Amino acid sequence: MSVPVLLVLLVLDADPPPRLGRLTGRARIVRTDAAGLAARLPGADVLLVWDFTSTAVREAWPGGGPRPRWVHTASAGVDHLMCPELAASATVVTNARGVFDEPIAEYVAALVLALAKDLPRTLEFQREGRWRHRESRRLAGTRACVVGSGPIGRAIARTLGALGVRAAVVGRAARTGVHGPKDLDRLVARADWVIAAAPLTEETRGMFDARRFGLMQPSACFVNVGRGQLVDEEALVRALTDGWIAGAALDVFRDEPLTPDSPLWRVPGLVVSPHMSGDTVGWRDELAAQFVDLYGRWEAGEPLPNVVDKRRGYVPGH
Amino acid sequence: MSVPVLLVLLVLDADPPPRLGRLTGRARIVRTDAAGLAARLPGADVLLVWDFTSTAVREAWPGGGPRPRWVHTASAGVDHLMCPELAASATVVTNARGVFDEPIAEYVAALVLALAKDLPRTLEFQREGRWRHRESRRLAGTRACVVGSGPIGRAIARTLGALGVRAAVVGRAARTGVHGPKDLDRLVARADWVIAAAPLTEETRGMFDARRFGLMQPSACFVNVGRGQLVDEEALVRALTDGWIAGAALDVFRDEPLTPDSPLWRVPGLVVSPHMSGDTVGWRDELAAQFVDLYGRWEAGEPLPNVVDKRRGYVPGH
Repeated sequence: MSVPVLLVLLVLDADPPPRLGRLTGRARIVRTDAAGLAARLPGADVLLVWDFTSTAVREAWPGGGPRPRWVHTASAGVDHLMCPELAASATVVTNARGVFDEPIAEYVAALVLALAKDLPRTLEFQREGRWRHRESRRLAGTRACVVGSGPIGRAIARTLGALGVRAAVVGRAARTGVHGPKDLDRLVARADWVIAAAPLTEETRGMFDARRFGLMQPSACFVNVGRGQLVDEEALVRALTDGWIAGAALDVFRDEPLTPDSPLWRVPGLVVSPHMSGDTVGWRDELAAQFVDLYGRWEAGEPLPNVVDKRRGYVPGH
Repeated sequence: MSVPVLLVLLVLDADPPPRLGRLTGRARIVRTDAAGLAARLPGADVLLVWDFTSTAVREAWPGGGPRPRWVHTASAGVDHLMCPELAASATVVTNARGVFDEPIAEYVAALVLALAKDLPRTLEFQREGRWRHRESRRLAGTRACVVGSGPIGRAIARTLGALGVRAAVVGRAARTGVHGPKDLDRLVARADWVIAAAPLTEETRGMFDARRFGLMQPSACFVNVGRGQLVDEEALVRALTDGWIAGAALDVFRDEPLTPDSPLWRVPGLVVSPHMSGDTVGWRDELAAQFVDLYGRWEAGEPLPNVVDKRRGYVPGH
């Protein structure tokens, strides 16, 4: 068997490429940007999608010629690369399941605590040099509804639970420790914190709409670390502006990056962060190491973990 | 026995007085402000210090006449009211031990997570409409040194521990689960988070000085929820400005409230909050209920809990 061709899709002029030194001699590594991807696909055995924001795969895949037998994306979500032709193909798609769970859970805890303790307003008062003592909220004893029952959603529930929050997890189907969709509205209505951590699929797109924000308590807050398209952003802005809910924090958006003229930067009660919840120091090395590990299994003909159900759009089970 | 006179020291034109309805008929309740305190002290059996920022007791106590046999302060610290004459007297002093532990621990977790996740800068970028992705820090696996081994310090260590932080507690004397002063410098030097939660005593005044900030790692952050006088504020500003440490959050200050012209509002890397760490919704009612409970024991001639060692300046033991 000849040395496989590993095609690495990179961001243009961006962060350093993955450290794949351990694959020297085991793969012919070819780097490409989005523009060059379509021409490179037919000659590649494996595609590593290192540019986790790019829709280049979805755009290049439908063209002619052979296709990589395996696509790995260094991200938890696969919505940015999936297309009908890839879903219908024999190509195996894997994701970075596991790398982001605990970092994202910590980030959600940071946002929820910041909202409970009114930290954004404290920083505003600080900027204005104003001493304004206020009462803030206890976190312990409050209720969270975590939407998304994958490893990320469950890590969020665990972390909030360690802080005394009663966290319920809602998934696509009920199972032990996970509520099914029929409980969603009831749990949203009584939650102090509604956390969106679901993959983007046809079932979850737009699920946080005016009706769901209308169910929430006026004292409750909404946090999204899943995908921007889970949320009707106009409805969220209205919910915040009209006081249907007390606050929100978004780390993901329908259109990323937000442009400087986006109205979302300036909605009262909304915290905006630039899709960074899972990205802690060393994360790129961890993603590269995870891929190298998967590559070893693929080389050996072993079954791969983290295989995405391409129709559903996430790794099922567990 | 006649109905005891309960003197309540209140803040002028401030928040509502304590709810003491359950004491109706059990005490003659006399309210006073700081100016009227000295004249009222001789006729009072019990003094409830509801104005937790006032130094009025320290100023009025040394005068002539009989004095209350019991002073309760609705605060954890007693530094604002203690004076040599009160310390030498037979008067029992109690504090609000227990009420603030968990709220303050949550507040510290909020500050530490905000620093780890770089939330203050995220909010700055938001204000400027700038999308700036950064890597942030994992909290789990980092090390904290919590200075103060009372219930508040131990609650902080527990809460950080629940988030995966290895938290060491330092107190006045070593005991099970608590390091003594001889370990302090070593623990400060290797901590990612140094948390000040000690009472203000002659031993702790100014303990966070240039030398101690100089011991800290350049990547470490300092948080103070104890008393402002624990810290040499000029040294802290220098430590932040010159990069000896990476960040800090202060909830307490040498002079409170901070005036609008205080330079502390605008130190890069410093989060300033207005002495609110323990003050969660309902805290005043909880403080009043705690006092009513203590009053019942005092009426019945039972021993009081939360008795302050007036020479040391805190409730010893445990």
